[in-house]
Amino acid sequence: MVVVASLRLPSLTSLFFASSRSTHRAPVALFRRRHSCRRQPFLAAAKFSAQSAASSPPETTEELAVNQKKSSKNNQDRVITPRSQDFNAWYLDVIANAELADYGPVRGTMVIRPYGYAIWEAIQDYLNVKFKETGHSNMYFPQFIPYSFIEKEASHVEGFSPELAVVTIGGGKELEEKLVVRPTSETIVNHMFTQWIHSYRDLPLLINQWANVTRWEMRTKPFVRTLEFLWQEGHTAHATPEEAEEEAMKMIDVYTKFAYEEAAIPVVVGRKSREETFAGAVRTYTIEAMMGDRKALQAGTSHNLGQNFSRAFDTQFMDENGQRQHIWQTSWAVSTRFVGGIIMTHGDDAGLMLPPKLAPVQVVIVPIWKKDDEKAGVLNAASSVKEVLHSAGVKVKLDDSDMRTPGWKFNFWEMKGVPIRIEIGPRDVASGSVVISRRDVPGKQGKVFGISMEPSTLVGYVKDKLDEIQASLLAKATSFRDSNIVDVSSYDELKEAISQGKWARGPWSASDEDEARVKEETGATIRCFPFEQPAGTKTCLMTGQPAGEIAIFAKSY
Amino acid sequence: MVVVASLRLPSLTSLFFASSRSTHRAPVALFRRRHSCRRQPFLAAAKFSAQSAASSPPETTEELAVNQKKSSKNNQDRVITPRSQDFNAWYLDVIANAELADYGPVRGTMVIRPYGYAIWEAIQDYLNVKFKETGHSNMYFPQFIPYSFIEKEASHVEGFSPELAVVTIGGGKELEEKLVVRPTSETIVNHMFTQWIHSYRDLPLLINQWANVTRWEMRTKPFVRTLEFLWQEGHTAHATPEEAEEEAMKMIDVYTKFAYEEAAIPVVVGRKSREETFAGAVRTYTIEAMMGDRKALQAGTSHNLGQNFSRAFDTQFMDENGQRQHIWQTSWAVSTRFVGGIIMTHGDDAGLMLPPKLAPVQVVIVPIWKKDDEKAGVLNAASSVKEVLHSAGVKVKLDDSDMRTPGWKFNFWEMKGVPIRIEIGPRDVASGSVVISRRDVPGKQGKVFGISMEPSTLVGYVKDKLDEIQASLLAKATSFRDSNIVDVSSYDELKEAISQGKWARGPWSASDEDEARVKEETGATIRCFPFEQPAGTKTCLMTGQPAGEIAIFAKSY
Repeated sequence: MVVVASLRLPSLTSLFFASSRSTHRAPVALFRRRHSCRRQPFLAAAKFSAQSAASSPPETTEELAVNQKKSSKNNQDRVITPRSQDFNAWYLDVIANAELADYGPVRGTMVIRPYGYAIWEAIQDYLNVKFKETGHSNMYFPQFIPYSFIEKEASHVEGFSPELAVVTIGGGKELEEKLVVRPTSETIVNHMFTQWIHSYRDLPLLINQWANVTRWEMRTKPFVRTLEFLWQEGHTAHATPEEAEEEAMKMIDVYTKFAYEEAAIPVVVGRKSREETFAGAVRTYTIEAMMGDRKALQAGTSHNLGQNFSRAFDTQFMDENGQRQHIWQTSWAVSTRFVGGIIMTHGDDAGLMLPPKLAPVQVVIVPIWKKDDEKAGVLNAASSVKEVLHSAGVKVKLDDSDMRTPGWKFNFWEMKGVPIRIEIGPRDVASGSVVISRRDVPGKQGKVFGISMEPSTLVGYVKDKLDEIQASLLAKATSFRDSNIVDVSSYDELKEAISQGKWARGPWSASDEDEARVKEETGATIRCFPFEQPAGTKTCLMTGQPAGEIAIFAKSY
Repeated sequence: MVVVASLRLPSLTSLFFASSRSTHRAPVALFRRRHSCRRQPFLAAAKFSAQSAASSPPETTEELAVNQKKSSKNNQDRVITPRSQDFNAWYLDVIANAELADYGPVRGTMVIRPYGYAIWEAIQDYLNVKFKETGHSNMYFPQFIPYSFIEKEASHVEGFSPELAVVTIGGGKELEEKLVVRPTSETIVNHMFTQWIHSYRDLPLLINQWANVTRWEMRTKPFVRTLEFLWQEGHTAHATPEEAEEEAMKMIDVYTKFAYEEAAIPVVVGRKSREETFAGAVRTYTIEAMMGDRKALQAGTSHNLGQNFSRAFDTQFMDENGQRQHIWQTSWAVSTRFVGGIIMTHGDDAGLMLPPKLAPVQVVIVPIWKKDDEKAGVLNAASSVKEVLHSAGVKVKLDDSDMRTPGWKFNFWEMKGVPIRIEIGPRDVASGSVVISRRDVPGKQGKVFGISMEPSTLVGYVKDKLDEIQASLLAKATSFRDSNIVDVSSYDELKEAISQGKWARGPWSASDEDEARVKEETGATIRCFPFEQPAGTKTCLMTGQPAGEIAIFAKSY
């Protein structure tokens, strides 16, 4: 009973705590499972559909106590599968229990629930500002695209046609031309750009849209790959190839900074191989994140489209010399997949662990009282602490429900990944102080007693602590990443690294066929040629020929 | 030449001004028309598709001057159709010239361009805060809805089935069950609510989503009625009919406040007649706005759904007495249609006129110089004025382009509806002052000279002026509205009022058949039974029977 021992109020907490922190047991009554009437579940996602009923507390605390006792005795009641035991089951359990998302009625679709959507809103808030700072305007293109548009760019149609959802009936009638529900918008964007762009003075044209997109994926997984997902897609047009290249690089840099500074995800940034380049692009830049199971997640991409779409759609401009030229373009996107990346980077057996900068709730206050005459004092103090933090711009929640024990609340908010918990009991009220616990440091070590409630002390302390947690999550993920990338100089070493579940990094100048062979034989693909390259001469791990660059190979989502 | 006469810098402006303010001539070179390759134009919207090339300035100022001279001589060159001449053509011209939207490639779809989208973003920013303040959380439901869902609620399917877009092919295969692209989300929301709601403790459940929706409309008009549009849809679940009613009223009140206080649109708020109630609702509340052509625009609705959907989807909860009950629900929505309402409420022959609170640009600064040695001083002053206003939270743009004359810029930003223009010339720099012009007060009367550049003076002056304009737009629209609502006490009077293009307000207790007859014979429908009702006994204008309420009849969009 680690938590009990570490608590400063044993007389209270021994009554409330039925499950101990050390076993990371989630509150059981909370996660009653129920088979929903879904028709086509996500592949390998049986648990994700489990219906949580977090807002349905048990009828009495006795009921809760009984459940908790059951759970103490019986590990089978544990609802979040341990991460080490089954990473995928753990992931789906976290999503269900933290109420991030649920299944939609159509196979592969997802309902993003308020807590999950709030993470997406935090992502949007940050990126939206950055896009505007870098000169982009938001706008909106229709989602229905004439089928013929998709066919105009050869590699684009090849890449996307197997994944299309097609509208064939409108207003009760068979349509003359089938409409594609946008899988991405390059084609319709170019159709419009052709009408808007005439002269070099119209360039650069820098736009972005926040939208839903549809790709008829066969293997789906909540957030990571769903039939419909939310994203932003930037589309830009330029007068020169240099400007387009500069833009593509600028936006992958925005994504990289976002990943490091906001999501605390130490992505590897680099260029995709020809095989992995976006359908229709000349070059694709990518940020690749290492998940907790060491699989790679492509978390954002920025494409230099060259003139591929402008030639297909004849998007031309008159240059300064009066010559007609096709425009040079980019596109770039980040999607709700990033939420999956956050879960799989930071989460642990207790559930979600959110980086403070993206957490919908940064601080949860749990008031603790035993006797009725303590309640008012504790709640008053808790409310004023809440007000102080709220006024200072901290996202704070006071969980003053009567229906749950403090112990239940501790577990619940840990599972929801809230970075800081503040506990306030009668003794704290008497001493004018609070107890502060860090989500990312389990048990005693993460707990500090006697922090003054005095606003000037408390606000600074909490903000520093949030920064510290943010930095700590990044440091931990970086160290995990670095200890799981192996430098290899031969195909045998590569195979060995991949078979251990690691990323393999080595010089590569072999053919597309060799790349395909690696994929077939190991399941790993080139995630990218990282921008950070070692100096000196290199020898291709596959062919022994000189290699200009190292590549990173990994299994991926 | 009213503008020239009113300018304080005649020596400069006489050189620049080729067109006069009094004729409201839009800059002609700007609006070169070009037939785009659209396939199916909006009905009656030929001009909307005209391609503007605002960001393509003419090659030389000589070319512009020539165009401007042409336009002075020849009124046929005027691009924005006068509002009084053809309201619809005026509306489409404004949308095209102010670059609010353009046609999508599919009939009835619309591309929302950055300036139009920025108005929508301002609407979102306000409402999103209000929704959260009133306890609602954002989330996201999939847009694909199994066809069978739509059929579950009888009046819902009747109302929506003629307007559905249907996906029949996914991933290259014919789907077993056809999927509807959401026309609204009540059905899928109820499908999920049924899984999430168990006990009275789960209630109320208050959610909202920002999304695109699709309705296969036959008669489309940009912003007002498009095949795909953007909106927010609130969905709530309650334990009692009283709470649902309270919620429906609360949200129509949020919309009403928004319309008055932000959009400066004096909507009439009331209840829809049975005939006009949302397909599936028990009661629909509406805000009805009077457009510049005196047609009504339904600008937002809030529905008390009763138990119609909860019975269809069997969405039940256990009440405090342990009895299972169907939940009571509401839904409410505002869409991009509101942007159309803003255009048609405030715009004039010079173009768009935006309420300051929703204007993407509240203040435009136009620097004026003649000689090269004046330029640096003027631009420096203009930049520092911009910085001062920007720091004070004013949305300000400095139009320092070399390629346009001040006169061109005056017309351009008037056409874009920017509430305040600040002019800065060499004499202003010398005297440390600026000239301020109001968009809503034409000519001399709207112009004030010698406002100090000193930040403490200027910021306060500009903010007061913005408030004044906001209030003035509302007052003007209110007076217009009130002078166009006629109290009627007989059907003949009603017909007379409608034939004059006005709204008719009179006591009504007649049948649905009588209501249908009015529609057939006059083209007018009951817009609402307004919440504001006169005291005293009333006699139905149609039947002579006692009437509990007055209704408002009007032609509508």
